[in-house]
Amino acid sequence: MLDFMKVDELIYATLAEDTPFGDITTEYTVPDDSVSKARLVAKQDGVLAGMDIFKRVFEILNDDINVEIFFNDGAFVEKGTVIAHLEGPTKEMLIGERTGLNILQRLSGIATATSQYVKLTEGYKVKIADTRKTTPGLRYFEKYAVRMGGGSNHRFSLSDGVMIKDNHIVAAGGIKNAVEAVRKHIPHTVKVEVETENLDMVREAVEAGADIIMLDNMSDEMMAEAVKIIDGKALTEASGDMNEARIKSVAATGVDIISIGRLTHSVKSMDISLKFY
Amino acid sequence: MLDFMKVDELIYATLAEDTPFGDITTEYTVPDDSVSKARLVAKQDGVLAGMDIFKRVFEILNDDINVEIFFNDGAFVEKGTVIAHLEGPTKEMLIGERTGLNILQRLSGIATATSQYVKLTEGYKVKIADTRKTTPGLRYFEKYAVRMGGGSNHRFSLSDGVMIKDNHIVAAGGIKNAVEAVRKHIPHTVKVEVETENLDMVREAVEAGADIIMLDNMSDEMMAEAVKIIDGKALTEASGDMNEARIKSVAATGVDIISIGRLTHSVKSMDISLKFY
Amino acid sequence: MLDFMKVDELIYATLAEDTPFGDITTEYTVPDDSVSKARLVAKQDGVLAGMDIFKRVFEILNDDINVEIFFNDGAFVEKGTVIAHLEGPTKEMLIGERTGLNILQRLSGIATATSQYVKLTEGYKVKIADTRKTTPGLRYFEKYAVRMGGGSNHRFSLSDGVMIKDNHIVAAGGIKNAVEAVRKHIPHTVKVEVETENLDMVREAVEAGADIIMLDNMSDEMMAEAVKIIDGKALTEASGDMNEARIKSVAATGVDIISIGRLTHSVKSMDISLKFY
Amino acid sequence: MLDFMKVDELIYATLAEDTPFGDITTEYTVPDDSVSKARLVAKQDGVLAGMDIFKRVFEILNDDINVEIFFNDGAFVEKGTVIAHLEGPTKEMLIGERTGLNILQRLSGIATATSQYVKLTEGYKVKIADTRKTTPGLRYFEKYAVRMGGGSNHRFSLSDGVMIKDNHIVAAGGIKNAVEAVRKHIPHTVKVEVETENLDMVREAVEAGADIIMLDNMSDEMMAEAVKIIDGKALTEASGDMNEARIKSVAATGVDIISIGRLTHSVKSMDISLKFY
Amino acid sequence: MLDFMKVDELIYATLAEDTPFGDITTEYTVPDDSVSKARLVAKQDGVLAGMDIFKRVFEILNDDINVEIFFNDGAFVEKGTVIAHLEGPTKEMLIGERTGLNILQRLSGIATATSQYVKLTEGYKVKIADTRKTTPGLRYFEKYAVRMGGGSNHRFSLSDGVMIKDNHIVAAGGIKNAVEAVRKHIPHTVKVEVETENLDMVREAVEAGADIIMLDNMSDEMMAEAVKIIDGKALTEASGDMNEARIKSVAATGVDIISIGRLTHSVKSMDISLKFY
Amino acid sequence: MLDFMKVDELIYATLAEDTPFGDITTEYTVPDDSVSKARLVAKQDGVLAGMDIFKRVFEILNDDINVEIFFNDGAFVEKGTVIAHLEGPTKEMLIGERTGLNILQRLSGIATATSQYVKLTEGYKVKIADTRKTTPGLRYFEKYAVRMGGGSNHRFSLSDGVMIKDNHIVAAGGIKNAVEAVRKHIPHTVKVEVETENLDMVREAVEAGADIIMLDNMSDEMMAEAVKIIDGKALTEASGDMNEARIKSVAATGVDIISIGRLTHSVKSMDISLKFY
Repeated sequence: MLDFMKVDELIYATLAEDTPFGDITTEYTVPDDSVSKARLVAKQDGVLAGMDIFKRVFEILNDDINVEIFFNDGAFVEKGTVIAHLEGPTKEMLIGERTGLNILQRLSGIATATSQYVKLTEGYKVKIADTRKTTPGLRYFEKYAVRMGGGSNHRFSLSDGVMIKDNHIVAAGGIKNAVEAVRKHIPHTVKVEVETENLDMVREAVEAGADIIMLDNMSDEMMAEAVKIIDGKALTEASGDMNEARIKSVAATGVDIISIGRLTHSVKSMDISLKFY
Repeated sequence: MLDFMKVDELIYATLAEDTPFGDITTEYTVPDDSVSKARLVAKQDGVLAGMDIFKRVFEILNDDINVEIFFNDGAFVEKGTVIAHLEGPTKEMLIGERTGLNILQRLSGIATATSQYVKLTEGYKVKIADTRKTTPGLRYFEKYAVRMGGGSNHRFSLSDGVMIKDNHIVAAGGIKNAVEAVRKHIPHTVKVEVETENLDMVREAVEAGADIIMLDNMSDEMMAEAVKIIDGKALTEASGDMNEARIKSVAATGVDIISIGRLTHSVKSMDISLKFY
Repeated sequence: MLDFMKVDELIYATLAEDTPFGDITTEYTVPDDSVSKARLVAKQDGVLAGMDIFKRVFEILNDDINVEIFFNDGAFVEKGTVIAHLEGPTKEMLIGERTGLNILQRLSGIATATSQYVKLTEGYKVKIADTRKTTPGLRYFEKYAVRMGGGSNHRFSLSDGVMIKDNHIVAAGGIKNAVEAVRKHIPHTVKVEVETENLDMVREAVEAGADIIMLDNMSDEMMAEAVKIIDGKALTEASGDMNEARIKSVAATGVDIISIGRLTHSVKSMDISLKFY
Repeated sequence: MLDFMKVDELIYATLAEDTPFGDITTEYTVPDDSVSKARLVAKQDGVLAGMDIFKRVFEILNDDINVEIFFNDGAFVEKGTVIAHLEGPTKEMLIGERTGLNILQRLSGIATATSQYVKLTEGYKVKIADTRKTTPGLRYFEKYAVRMGGGSNHRFSLSDGVMIKDNHIVAAGGIKNAVEAVRKHIPHTVKVEVETENLDMVREAVEAGADIIMLDNMSDEMMAEAVKIIDGKALTEASGDMNEARIKSVAATGVDIISIGRLTHSVKSMDISLKFY
Repeated sequence: MLDFMKVDELIYATLAEDTPFGDITTEYTVPDDSVSKARLVAKQDGVLAGMDIFKRVFEILNDDINVEIFFNDGAFVEKGTVIAHLEGPTKEMLIGERTGLNILQRLSGIATATSQYVKLTEGYKVKIADTRKTTPGLRYFEKYAVRMGGGSNHRFSLSDGVMIKDNHIVAAGGIKNAVEAVRKHIPHTVKVEVETENLDMVREAVEAGADIIMLDNMSDEMMAEAVKIIDGKALTEASGDMNEARIKSVAATGVDIISIGRLTHSVKSMDISLKFY
Repeated sequence: MLDFMKVDELIYATLAEDTPFGDITTEYTVPDDSVSKARLVAKQDGVLAGMDIFKRVFEILNDDINVEIFFNDGAFVEKGTVIAHLEGPTKEMLIGERTGLNILQRLSGIATATSQYVKLTEGYKVKIADTRKTTPGLRYFEKYAVRMGGGSNHRFSLSDGVMIKDNHIVAAGGIKNAVEAVRKHIPHTVKVEVETENLDMVREAVEAGADIIMLDNMSDEMMAEAVKIIDGKALTEASGDMNEARIKSVAATGVDIISIGRLTHSVKSMDISLKFY
């Protein structure tokens, strides 16, 4: 379920960016009463995210455009699949095409990438999570796409999760002090995570009562050792330039979560195109 | 020169997205009077774009933060290079870190990718251009990053360039009609481009007086033939899933412009990090 | 076809400006169930622009108000003509009256003025074009009104057309340098215009390969001479305090376009009123 | 004293409208370090309004631009007068030129027109007032310009003054009922005006205790009679297509206020230009 | 009649504040097709304000939610009364619950408090009025709630009423000067109020021709004396920490208006709850 | 540390609400060069919140106004204390007075009320927490004021904490199912709270592994029993019409948190006034 207010805001802003003074090609070549049909086709295998936004683009432009969706967000579709069918006034179908595709392709690209990491770690209890390395203005949508790809979300923002990093530790005078200082003031509904870089820090974080311990840029061996030390007293999160080559061995260390920045900061848009009949 | 109004709007929106209710970690662990130093380091070779935006993030948060920039937008930097130095209040340096990096890394990723295509076509007169396949909300900035990478811009939006595609041609009743209809109404400051898929269409477009002729998804041979037919009567633009493997042979066909969607729709963020001392 | 997003934004802003705390007269004198009928009447001859915006004002306020339009934008109507008929809840008809009329009368005033210049130049190939001397916030609408009056648009903004003026020439080191500098960076979809004040500049602009040459504040004789020099190698645009008295002789010089600031900067609203039965 | 928040909002919106993707001429022809001088010159006699907004445009764009103002709002200047002097970075002076002039010329046009009506009625106690027939989005500024021209403001919006028109009277069941209904609910800080079309209505309005009585579209004779009937028990306001030809005889009827729609709905921009040295 | 634009803007902003990244409880526990019924119940005696806003919250979230209202704004309801009935999709009923109640309870709290003061002064001609001591962002709605409670509005803002206070008097050089200065410039539709603290000031204000005289922080005796001095030449307004204990004796002094800050600045929300069946 | 972007947005919106068309009293009575001094005085005992916002109001209006703050947010001040001193241009001091006071008084009212509850529970380990029953648009600020009063925050919004209520339990098919469903999808940084109404539900919630258990509308005895059952396996939160009379005995039950809606939904503004010398 996407927040319709955020969806509409995104679409309006994207359309406005593309038409500061209208679509001067379509306006003068396409008669008002022209109608067309088109199909939305996957040009690669992938997992969809953003179908309702795609549909909504055209509804906003002209509610006489009928968009029939054949596959919902989260669905895996093979190359060549017809994902949706559009029918209605040609003008607004042309005006909305790029906006609809830009959003759908990007979100589906994220969902597709996520699903690949999820697949690689099948059989392990580990969750694949995103980070805050999202595109400015699109965090809500990109985190949604990660979920559609079978992934899980890390904190949404600096307001809804605590992540005590090196600098916080130094400034607060040690992990223990930092955890205590935070616990005293934050909403009691939020957990405290501590970023650690070695086993000494891991032990300190456990003693300080951290709810989550991030194992940052550690070797698989060190992570396995850290998981033993933590022993269920906190959630364990592996982090640091995770990629497809390494993901499986990290999962095998027994960590609870692997967080991966590239899910959102280095996305290849899914290849999807709109073909007019 | 970036539009400072758009820069500030981007930064404010990105910070707001990341702090709906403040930074609850930093707020309670870092004293108000804590100061820090940090260096911005390239962790890969690349071309920079967004340095002034990065700097402005911290100026907005706290103008006591001093950001000294060593390399400007458009500069190529090698892995390991210290790009900038920051010094000032710790709190706002931590709050702005992710926002600054998310913007800088993405734009530099685009500039870097663009520069690679430009390099591959050195020796040819061809321009490497972007498309409208940009990230919702970031078009102005992504088109800037393409320029910083040595590329050139295609039209900014549906309002400032005419692109007559298949559907416009059908609706208008042929290429000639479409070009005429548009010429009659558009501002006289804008050129008319026609998208063609075969040599017959190319000939028609020339006759219709198109200013620019797009050669869409053609083989190198067909493109070379099209360039001959057009013979300088219009600009020629190659398009359609252009990639690094093929770019050189396309340039060799003599086209004026090669437009490449993946410059902006499938970007790998440049790896840049902020290291606190 | 007007951009409905821009239309709604204009209407909302205009209504909000007129009712920071409601309509305190109507609220307390008119019962909620009161209904009225009214006719929209031209009180002078003129060309309409903004009829759909006028209608939309009332739809937004209360979709039980039925607005039947008898003449569309671009239509010439004589004094006394009933242009539209309204029927529905009295309250919102009264609240929207001034907003609807203010917009319709201004845009129709522009369309009417434009049509008069167009009429004066009938028989010549020349186009009557607007400028960037538009009302802050209303450029999109005023340029639309110019088209409805039979005129043509100059560039919409500083982003979608190049106009090299005196200062640009000085800064760039001559017309040739300026044209080259611009050509190298601007989108290939945009033309380059050079403003000239004498025949030497005209010759230079031709040599520099300008797409459009503006003849600024020249006598009719000089313009005729310039047209000969240019000889079809560029579009020619006459500019500089054009008015009704002179327009015909300027058209006779053979220029392609006459651009007229007063179409938008010195408009007399068309006299239109809403009469309740 | 203008509200700086409204001023900045106006300027930002106007600049944004003119540069959706930057100024592509200036960007590529003018070096960053180029500086220029320019003078702002009145090309007709007139009364200034908007000088501080004009200055603020350039301060916002680049605070290194120095704008020295020689005449303030409300000042009458003769054709040829140098009104202000500008000096600073060329780029932003060129980018802001049109925005600054569009605002200043329009507001000065309104101030100039107003001052002419004021002058025509010198010797009479009458006030020249504006109406709600203002440009969408600019009411605050246009009403300011009227004051700078020596005129006076009518109500700002539907919220801060009561104007009982024909339809309100019908809906409320007579003038007396309408006045009573309104008095009961409106803030006690606001006056009640009744629009009348004949002497019977005038008498009714007086009896109903109206604070202001509008004499709408009456002959001078009828107005004089109405003034006698009212006899100081209410303010009297003449209205209805007032123009320069008639204004003096209307003033002679003894009315307190003459309200004139054309002060704002049919304005000729004052001719002012920016000359670079 | 509430301004639907302001209502929607309030609701959108309030929902957005409560869901920067969605409702993570409801999203994952409640199936999309779940439907529920609920009743809105008064848990104390009170006067309602905001029923249509409450209803609109749910319509905006999901127009399949049916809200049947049994009592309108302004109605007095006893503890235990079922005020409305809701039926529809569970998800959006839960998401909107807090937003709807927060608005309704606050406005009804204001209406209820107002009605108590009105009741206490029954039998006197006095009006109970609000002040500008309203909640930031909610003035339009809080002034509406005061009217629903039987109260009357003071000026809406600094723009629609004149209130000459001590500092204005000092700056202008006396009451007479201040009143004259203001009369000369303000819209003729607005009244002039003078704040007085003793009987000398009252006399001065009468002589200066004030339309309204505020008696600020005076004893009942002094007020009664002031009313006599004023003798109908101006409206009289009692002000200054008015409370329930004193309100009756103040009314008895014969003042026209009593303005009470605590109607809006110190409100106890009315106790209303939404009970799901 | 308050988010300066949110502070400025609040101030701009509040000033705009109060001056749609300027301050017509101050504008015409106070000369531009008039300067004044004033002191901010507590007229009751209380705890301050919002001092920096108060100061910022005047800085925004005119940075020549100097505001010297003597007591910071969180400080307890006695009746009669001079809290701050202002000096500068009279005009903007008068324009900003109401805006500054409205914000400061409300937030200080919340801080004061919170501090009273905190004081009443001194000696117990319990935290006094707020709820989501905040004023539309002001949640960020009201939650800040609660902290300034010594209280603690509950979740900020529906996005950053899970609260499983009756309806979620029914929809999910029991407490266990609900907790599991949520755990699977929410960010791992957020805790899960379950609302319980009796001891059976408490036991179920413990078994389901809830992080926090809300004891809703229970007697003190039942709460004490619940605390025993929970036995440190989850945080315990007392809720339901908490008031001053009862707060102490609730604290004595051993609960960890008491959440109190009236901290924000029924606030009496702290009495603070600005006295001009």
